Amino acid sequence: MHENITIWTLDWVPMTNGPAGFVRDMRLRWACEEAGLPYSVRTVPFGEGGPDHLACQPFGQVPFMSDGDLNMFESGACVLHLAEKSEALMPRDPQERAETLQWFIAALNSIEMVSVPWWFLEVTGAKENGLTGWLESRLAHMERILNEREWLAAGRFTIADLMMADVLRVAKLRAFGDRPAAEAYVDRVMDRPAFKKAQADQMAHFEAADAVRRQAES
Amino acid sequence: MHENITIWTLDWVPMTNGPAGFVRDMRLRWACEEAGLPYSVRTVPFGEGGPDHLACQPFGQVPFMSDGDLNMFESGACVLHLAEKSEALMPRDPQERAETLQWFIAALNSIEMVSVPWWFLEVTGAKENGLTGWLESRLAHMERILNEREWLAAGRFTIADLMMADVLRVAKLRAFGDRPAAEAYVDRVMDRPAFKKAQADQMAHFEAADAVRRQAES
Repeated sequence: MHENITIWTLDWVPMTNGPAGFVRDMRLRWACEEAGLPYSVRTVPFGEGGPDHLACQPFGQVPFMSDGDLNMFESGACVLHLAEKSEALMPRDPQERAETLQWFIAALNSIEMVSVPWWFLEVTGAKENGLTGWLESRLAHMERILNEREWLAAGRFTIADLMMADVLRVAKLRAFGDRPAAEAYVDRVMDRPAFKKAQADQMAHFEAADAVRRQAES
Repeated sequence: MHENITIWTLDWVPMTNGPAGFVRDMRLRWACEEAGLPYSVRTVPFGEGGPDHLACQPFGQVPFMSDGDLNMFESGACVLHLAEKSEALMPRDPQERAETLQWFIAALNSIEMVSVPWWFLEVTGAKENGLTGWLESRLAHMERILNEREWLAAGRFTIADLMMADVLRVAKLRAFGDRPAAEAYVDRVMDRPAFKKAQADQMAHFEAADAVRRQAES
C-alpha cells in the first residue's frame, strides 16, 4: 500500500480562548513529526458535522486520517496506527511495547477520562465540580510516578509520553494544584522539536484561516 | 516466551449494589475466552492499594496482567495485547484492523470518557449532573450507528464490540433514555458464550470470597 498520510482537521476555530494549539490533529501531526513521516492536512467545516463529516467521524469531531486506501478516526487509534510504522514512536521489544501501550491507554482512559469531564464542568460553569477529588487523586498518582522517572515507558520518549503530555498540558490542569514533577515533565515533552513544529504548524493553519475570515467580515 | 497468562483482580468486592460482574478483569477474562487462551486468576486485597499493589498498577486499581515474563496494566492495553495473539479478537487485514482500533479507542475515549464520569456524578449524589447533555449526544450518535450495523468493525465481533458493549452495559446507562438499537446490540454481545463464561466465573469468584468473609464475621 502506498503510504500517503492525510490528517483531517477543522477549517477554522475561535481564536479567543479557543482550542487553537490543542485541536487533536496535534497528536497526529506530532506523531508524524517524531517519526519523520510525511503528511498533508485537509479540513472539514467548523460547527455541527454534516453527513459527509459524520461518514468519516461518527461523533462529528476531528481528527480523522487516511493512509493510502485506509481510513480511520479517533486520535488514539490513529497514533497507534502510526506507531506501528516507526520504532521512534513505539519500541519493538515486547515488554517495552507493553509498557508503552499501558501508559498510552492510561493517558486516554485513566487521566483524560477524568480531566476532560472535569474541564468540561469548569468551562460550562457548573456550580460545584463533583470530579475535583477524583482528578486530584489521579494527578497525585501521576506526580508520584513522574517524580521517579523521566519518561513513562522503555526509558525513552514514546507515544505514551506524547499522549500523557498532551492530556496534562491543558492550561486549566496546569494551573490546578502544585505538581512540580508533572510540570517539569510536560515542559520536557513540549520542548521536543517535533512538538514545537506540530504546534507551530497548527497555529499557523488556524491563524491563516482566522485572517481570511476576519477579512471576509470587514 | 512461554505464554502463561495471569489476570489479577480484587480478592473481594461488596456484593450489594456492588461492582461484581463489572470489575474490569471481565474484559481480560472475556478476551481470553473469545480467543481460547488459557489463563489463571490471582488477587490483591480490596481497598486502598498498598505499595505492592501500586508497583503493579500505579492508580491502585485492577486489573493488571502478566503474560510469561511480561507485565502490564490498563484493561484497554491488556486487551490490545491479547488481541495480537488471536485473529478471533482483531482482524489482520489492515483496513479491518484500523476499524477495530478506532472503535476500540472510541469506546474508551469517546463514550466511556463521558459515561463513567456521568455515572460517578450520579452515584456520588451530585445535585445536578452537568454531563447529561454531552452523554445524550454521544449515545445518540451510537444509536444511529448501531441502527446501521450488527458489529462495529469488519462485519463481525472484534475487541471493538467487547469494549463498546462493556462500556454500554452499565445498568444506569441502560436505564437512561430509549435506545433500542444500543439495547439490542448490548444484548447480542452479552449473549456470546465467552461473555457468559467470563461473567459467571467472575461472579463465582466474588460470591465465594463473600461467603468466606461472612463466615469469618459470624
